[in-house]
Amino acid sequence: MVTMKAAYYGGSRQIDIRACVPVTPGPGQVRVQVSHCGICGTDLHVYLGDLDHRLRLPEVIGHEGSGTIAELGPGVEGLAVGQPVVVMPIISCGQCPACVAGDYHVCHQLKVIGIEAPGAMQSSWTVPAHLVFPLPAGMDLQQAALIEPVAVACHDIRAGALQTGEYALVLGGGPIGALIAIVAKHKGARVLVTEINPFRIAMLRRLGLEVLDPRQPGWVERIMEETGGAGADVVFEVTGVAAGAEMMTKAAKVRGRIVIVGVFAKPAPVDIYKIFARELQLFGARVYQREDFSEAIAIVHSGAIPGHELITNVLPLEQLRYGLDQMATGGDVMKILIDCQA
Amino acid sequence: MVTMKAAYYGGSRQIDIRACVPVTPGPGQVRVQVSHCGICGTDLHVYLGDLDHRLRLPEVIGHEGSGTIAELGPGVEGLAVGQPVVVMPIISCGQCPACVAGDYHVCHQLKVIGIEAPGAMQSSWTVPAHLVFPLPAGMDLQQAALIEPVAVACHDIRAGALQTGEYALVLGGGPIGALIAIVAKHKGARVLVTEINPFRIAMLRRLGLEVLDPRQPGWVERIMEETGGAGADVVFEVTGVAAGAEMMTKAAKVRGRIVIVGVFAKPAPVDIYKIFARELQLFGARVYQREDFSEAIAIVHSGAIPGHELITNVLPLEQLRYGLDQMATGGDVMKILIDCQA
Repeated sequence: MVTMKAAYYGGSRQIDIRACVPVTPGPGQVRVQVSHCGICGTDLHVYLGDLDHRLRLPEVIGHEGSGTIAELGPGVEGLAVGQPVVVMPIISCGQCPACVAGDYHVCHQLKVIGIEAPGAMQSSWTVPAHLVFPLPAGMDLQQAALIEPVAVACHDIRAGALQTGEYALVLGGGPIGALIAIVAKHKGARVLVTEINPFRIAMLRRLGLEVLDPRQPGWVERIMEETGGAGADVVFEVTGVAAGAEMMTKAAKVRGRIVIVGVFAKPAPVDIYKIFARELQLFGARVYQREDFSEAIAIVHSGAIPGHELITNVLPLEQLRYGLDQMATGGDVMKILIDCQA
Repeated sequence: MVTMKAAYYGGSRQIDIRACVPVTPGPGQVRVQVSHCGICGTDLHVYLGDLDHRLRLPEVIGHEGSGTIAELGPGVEGLAVGQPVVVMPIISCGQCPACVAGDYHVCHQLKVIGIEAPGAMQSSWTVPAHLVFPLPAGMDLQQAALIEPVAVACHDIRAGALQTGEYALVLGGGPIGALIAIVAKHKGARVLVTEINPFRIAMLRRLGLEVLDPRQPGWVERIMEETGGAGADVVFEVTGVAAGAEMMTKAAKVRGRIVIVGVFAKPAPVDIYKIFARELQLFGARVYQREDFSEAIAIVHSGAIPGHELITNVLPLEQLRYGLDQMATGGDVMKILIDCQA
């Protein structure tokens, strides 16, 4: 019998790599031989125990997987064994008011594969076929592991209705903030990123992005100067902390758009008066819709995403815990990929 | 020489009624014989000294005036002496980025007549002709003093893109909240108002509005039940206090719209995670644009605004201070009008 291996999260900071048997795909499912899977900030939250209420332990984590179709379940059409693919890792109920309204990605009972269902940190991954997106032939599967976070960036940019030539301020230059900045610039926006981690600041600058440390005085004045006194057209709040919530209303132009991307662990003070007085607009933006995934595939395929810089580490599955610890301790890392076949 | 009288605010809780001489309208100005002027919550803030940094003392306050044109300045066309009018009391610079973008009502240097320029609490009021809106012939000038706050309500509803049949939650049933609720219902929305003042609760119920006291448990559940588990399509935050900021994210549907109407004296905690996770949308909404004023005139003229209930007091100019004190102490009042000729 074919065996495989999988990384199970078993509770606070426990990761077990186990040999197991591949799950035979049922009707409407496919089995994917996983190539690579990125570690996301959400995986770090899982690892630290913050999301234990959402998981049935032990569970295979990971939701940024790329791979190749290894087996088709009964009735699956339009896909073929050997095809390179990525998986949109969200499962909607189809029946709640949000789903009925077409907003399946913010389903009241949204399940994320890798949290509420077995994730991609395993060598063989069985998933619903309708979540599988075929990739262009010959696409590099390491780069393809960036498609999921790029889809987040595409969704955020769409939520902010960012237009060519507009000025975008990205608060927080971690993996998602960096991708928002890169995609925004790719789409013709002027982009400024704020970040405090020196390693990330240096990387973002190497990538040709304008970066400032918001702990230095004068950052609001700089934005006002660069925008003729107007302020940023769109602000992306990607820090998820109170400092970001304070900054987001300061630099937006009158009637500017603020996109909420960061995950706030608790309510934070917001200058609601400024939202009123300057008629600011805030848009929450969560995960992605199918069109964002399709766009992300095209953008990664185009070569616009500098994976050679962003991917700072490629680790074998056995070193997943080391990778998570690197992220937890603020090591000199940006995007860490797991090689699920190594 | 013709004399007149005016109510001057002179600093913390000082109101002086003085005899003075009408200001002859210059080029592009008209002089209005003021009929009535409503007292706004902003006037209360002025009276309490909260906005002293914006006024050149002493200053004539008031910005909800109705009246009749008494005199035309040189070059004014399209208006006539004797015409009943209201005045849109905001002055834009015409040159800042917001004005250039067409958003004159959120001008970076916006001046409000009655704060940064002489207001309507006087028997004779000289204003720029381009801010004057003629009224339908025979329109009651007491009712017409409600047009300015109705224009606020129209602007707020437009900011929230409220549609016929949608469910609107109005947090705070003071004059502005009541008018938002009335106009929303007039436009075919289902409306629920939250209010804690028993006098206002009783009045709103007499007006046929659904009202609840949010200090009672189960208010969120009620909204969920009335919306098939979805939540409110649009929430209007009109309280300006932390309790409202906490409530606004609780009752909105996934991708629901929250309109920020209340004036927050300081930053308040906001559940930003919920904005993210439910993709809520927040829209600041300040004053109005010309189309809102035109719409408000039509709505008041149609008889849809129950002025007979909402106008709880009509006081002579000499009693302005009494009216302000009534509002400051939470007296049994809704909208107080000043009769500027009495």
